[in-house]
Amino acid sequence: MAKLEDIVSLCKRRGFIFQGSDVYGGMAGTWDFGPLGVALKRKIMQTWWKYWVEDREDMLGVDAAIIMNPKTWVASGHAATFADPLVECNECHGRFRADKLAKTAEGHDLSANITKDQLINAGIKCPTCGKINWGEVKQFNMMFETHVGAVSDETSVAYLRPETAQGIFTNYKNVVDNVYPDLPFGLAQQGKAFRNEISPRDFIFRCRELEQMEIEYFVHPNDWERIFTELLRDVHVFLEETMQLPANMIHEYEVPADDRAHYSKRTVDIEFDFPIGSEELMGIAYRTDFDLQNVARASGKNMEYRDKKTGESFVPHVIEPSFGVERLVMAVLSAAYHEDEVNGEKRTVLKLPEAFAPFRFCVSPLLKNKPELVEKARTVYQILRKKYGNVTWDDSGNIGKRYRKQDEIGTPKCVVIDFDTLEDDTVTIRDRDTLAQTRVKINEL
Amino acid sequence: MAKLEDIVSLCKRRGFIFQGSDVYGGMAGTWDFGPLGVALKRKIMQTWWKYWVEDREDMLGVDAAIIMNPKTWVASGHAATFADPLVECNECHGRFRADKLAKTAEGHDLSANITKDQLINAGIKCPTCGKINWGEVKQFNMMFETHVGAVSDETSVAYLRPETAQGIFTNYKNVVDNVYPDLPFGLAQQGKAFRNEISPRDFIFRCRELEQMEIEYFVHPNDWERIFTELLRDVHVFLEETMQLPANMIHEYEVPADDRAHYSKRTVDIEFDFPIGSEELMGIAYRTDFDLQNVARASGKNMEYRDKKTGESFVPHVIEPSFGVERLVMAVLSAAYHEDEVNGEKRTVLKLPEAFAPFRFCVSPLLKNKPELVEKARTVYQILRKKYGNVTWDDSGNIGKRYRKQDEIGTPKCVVIDFDTLEDDTVTIRDRDTLAQTRVKINEL
Repeated sequence: MAKLEDIVSLCKRRGFIFQGSDVYGGMAGTWDFGPLGVALKRKIMQTWWKYWVEDREDMLGVDAAIIMNPKTWVASGHAATFADPLVECNECHGRFRADKLAKTAEGHDLSANITKDQLINAGIKCPTCGKINWGEVKQFNMMFETHVGAVSDETSVAYLRPETAQGIFTNYKNVVDNVYPDLPFGLAQQGKAFRNEISPRDFIFRCRELEQMEIEYFVHPNDWERIFTELLRDVHVFLEETMQLPANMIHEYEVPADDRAHYSKRTVDIEFDFPIGSEELMGIAYRTDFDLQNVARASGKNMEYRDKKTGESFVPHVIEPSFGVERLVMAVLSAAYHEDEVNGEKRTVLKLPEAFAPFRFCVSPLLKNKPELVEKARTVYQILRKKYGNVTWDDSGNIGKRYRKQDEIGTPKCVVIDFDTLEDDTVTIRDRDTLAQTRVKINEL
Repeated sequence: MAKLEDIVSLCKRRGFIFQGSDVYGGMAGTWDFGPLGVALKRKIMQTWWKYWVEDREDMLGVDAAIIMNPKTWVASGHAATFADPLVECNECHGRFRADKLAKTAEGHDLSANITKDQLINAGIKCPTCGKINWGEVKQFNMMFETHVGAVSDETSVAYLRPETAQGIFTNYKNVVDNVYPDLPFGLAQQGKAFRNEISPRDFIFRCRELEQMEIEYFVHPNDWERIFTELLRDVHVFLEETMQLPANMIHEYEVPADDRAHYSKRTVDIEFDFPIGSEELMGIAYRTDFDLQNVARASGKNMEYRDKKTGESFVPHVIEPSFGVERLVMAVLSAAYHEDEVNGEKRTVLKLPEAFAPFRFCVSPLLKNKPELVEKARTVYQILRKKYGNVTWDDSGNIGKRYRKQDEIGTPKCVVIDFDTLEDDTVTIRDRDTLAQTRVKINEL
C-alpha cells in the first residue's frame, strides 16, 4: 500500500497538486492543481460527466451559482444543523472538535453530542498544552458566511454552498416547468462547495474548498428500492470498469439506521482503501421527498410532477449518488502509485489507466545533440500529437532519467528515435508497466 | 439585432439559463445554467481549453483554489484599490455608485473620483426618492469577505478571488521549480470569480458570480511587442474561426494610455456587438513584470526564470488574454438569435454553429401513436446517438411544434421517420437554416 506522504511528495515534485497559496506560506484546507493535476482532474470529471449524463437518456445537467439565496439553507436545514461541536481550551485558547478529541483519546467513544463535563470526566487533555480546562461545547456552523450588496448587516448575509445538491433542488421546478423530462430522471451537477472544517487534513481528502459531482435522481415513490439497486450497480460499473479502480479496494458499507439522516431509508457508502485507511469515496442515499418538501414549504411553490402517461401528480422521491472530485482523484492516484525495482534501482511509477494519464505517449530523440535525430523525433512527435492530442516531448537529461520521469507521471508508452530510425523508419516503444521494449514501424504507431 | 429581453426569455423558456435561486425569488447577480445552458457552456469552455491549451505546446493548465491566502490581495493591490465609489442618500438610505449616478445625469461626465459636493452642485437627484441629500462618497471594496477557521476576527479574514489571474501568479514559482517549461510559456486557468457589484445588470453580462478563462503568458522582456501581436492574432482566429462569431460584430479597441492600468504599456479590448451595445467581450493586456514583482516582494521569494539556452536569469514579463465565460456564452447566443417568418408565422431560431448546438440531431416519428413508426424511429435514434452522442428524441405535439422547439434550441437537423421509411429505409432531414427537407437513406446519415 502506498504511503500518503509519498503520494503528496510525488504530486508536488511533478506538478500534479500544490498546497494552495504555497508561495505565501499556504492556506490551510485548500489545494491548487498544477499542469499535470489539471490534466488528470479534467479527464476524471469529463469521464464522470460522459458516463452519468451524456451516455444516459435519463440524465440532464444543471450548473447553479455557488452563492444562493440564504432561504436555501434555512429550508435545507443547513443553517440550523450543519455544524461541528467546537470546544475551546481555557488555558491556551486552542479550539478543537469535541467529537474528534473524544475519539483520539484511547478507549473513549463519545458522540457528537459530547459535553464539557464528559470531556473533563473522561480525562481528555488539550492536545496543545496538555491541561484539562475545557469551555462549553458549542455548535460551530461550517458554512462560510459573506455579505452580498452594498450593505453589510444581517439582511445581506449569504453563504458559500456547502454542497452542490441544493443547487439541484432549487432548479428542479424550473426544469420540470420548462423542460418537462420523463420521470424517472436525474439532474447532475459538477462544481465547487465550501466547508469551514475545523481541522482540514489528509491531503485532498478533507478540504475546506472541494469539488463535488452530485446527482439527484427523481423517482415515483413506489420505485425507489428497485432504482436504488440499479444506481448502486451503475456506481460499481463506473468505479470498477470506467474508472478502472481495483474492485478489491472498494467496499460497500450499508449505513445502519442509527447513523443515517432521519429522512433516509437507505444509505450505502462506498469506501475505498486509501493510504489513510478505508474511508468514504462516495455515497448513495435515498432521501425520500424530504428536500423537495422543504423547498415547497419555504418557497410556497408546488413541487409536484404530473406523470405524462397516468396523469398522476406527486412530489417525486429522490436518490442521491454523491461523489467528491478530490477523493476520486486521490483514489486514482492511490491505486496507481507503485514502487518497484528496475536494474537494481528503486523506481516510482504511476500505473494510471491510459484514459487518465496526462500523456499517452512521450516522444524523445535518443541523443539531443544530434540534429538529425531531433528532427526525425519532432516529425514523429507531430504525427502522434495530431492523432492522439495528449503527447509530450522530452529531450532532457539522458534516456534513463526521462524514463524515470515519465514513469512518475504515468505515461504509458515512451517512443525513442535512434540511429536505426533514420535507416528503417522504426522506433523503440518502451512500456511503462512491463518495461518491454519493442521496435515498431512509425506508420504502425 | 436581437433584443436582450427576447434572449433572456428564450433562455428561461427552453432551459438554457434561469435566474439564480429563482424558486426563492432570486439572488441578484447570480444565474443558474439549466440543461441546455450547461451543454452549451461546457462546449464553449472545452473549445477554449482545446484551442488555447491542448492544441498548443506552449500552454499549461493550472486550477487554483478560490479562497487564497489574503496576502495575495494585498500584494496584487486588490485590497487597496479594487473598489467602486459608493454614495448613500441621507433621505431614503438608498446606496448607489457615485460614478454611475453622474453618468446617467444628462450632460454630466464626472469621474470615478467624484465627491459629495460635486454630486450636489451638479443637481443630481436620488433615483429612488428624488431628493438631493447625499452623504460622503466612500470607496466600496468589491471583494467578498469571509472568515476561515474556528475563530472569526481580523486574523481569519479571507476573500473570494475577484479574478482567476492571481491564482496563476501564485503558482508560477511552483510550476517553474517543478515543471520548468521552456520560455515563452503560458499558464491557463478556468474557474469562478466573485465581485460584489453594487448594480449587477444586463443578464449574464455583469454578474456577482462569474467564470473566467485567463492566460498569463510569460515572455522575455524584449519580446513582448512581437508576442502581443501574435496572441492578438490568435484571439481573432479563436473568436472568428473556432467560435464562429461574425467578424463584423467584433471590434478592436486600443485602450489609450490614460485609461490603462499604470503598469500596462498596451491593452486591447475586444468589443462585441451585444444587444446592450458594443461592449467588452475580452481583453488582452501587457502587464510588464508588475504582478511577479508584487509576488516577489510580498513573499520574499525569487521569481526569476533561468533561460535554458543562454543561462540568463530574469523576471519574465506577462501578456494576459482574459475571457469571461458568461460574456462568450452571451455573444454566441446573441449572434445565433434570429427571428424570421416561416409559412406566414413568426419563427424564433438559434442559428448555433453545429459544434455548439446542445443537440446535433433531433429524431422523431411522424406520428407518436403508430408503434411501427416509433419503433423504427427509436432504432434510428440509437444509431445516431451512438455515432454522434448529442442527439435528442422528440415525440411531443405535432411535427410543426417539434420543429419550432428544435429551432429555438438550435438543433441543426431534424430527422423524421414516416411511413415511407418503413418501405425504403429513407428518412426526411429538415435543415434548421435553409428549411430544406431532403430524403436520405438511413445508412448514409
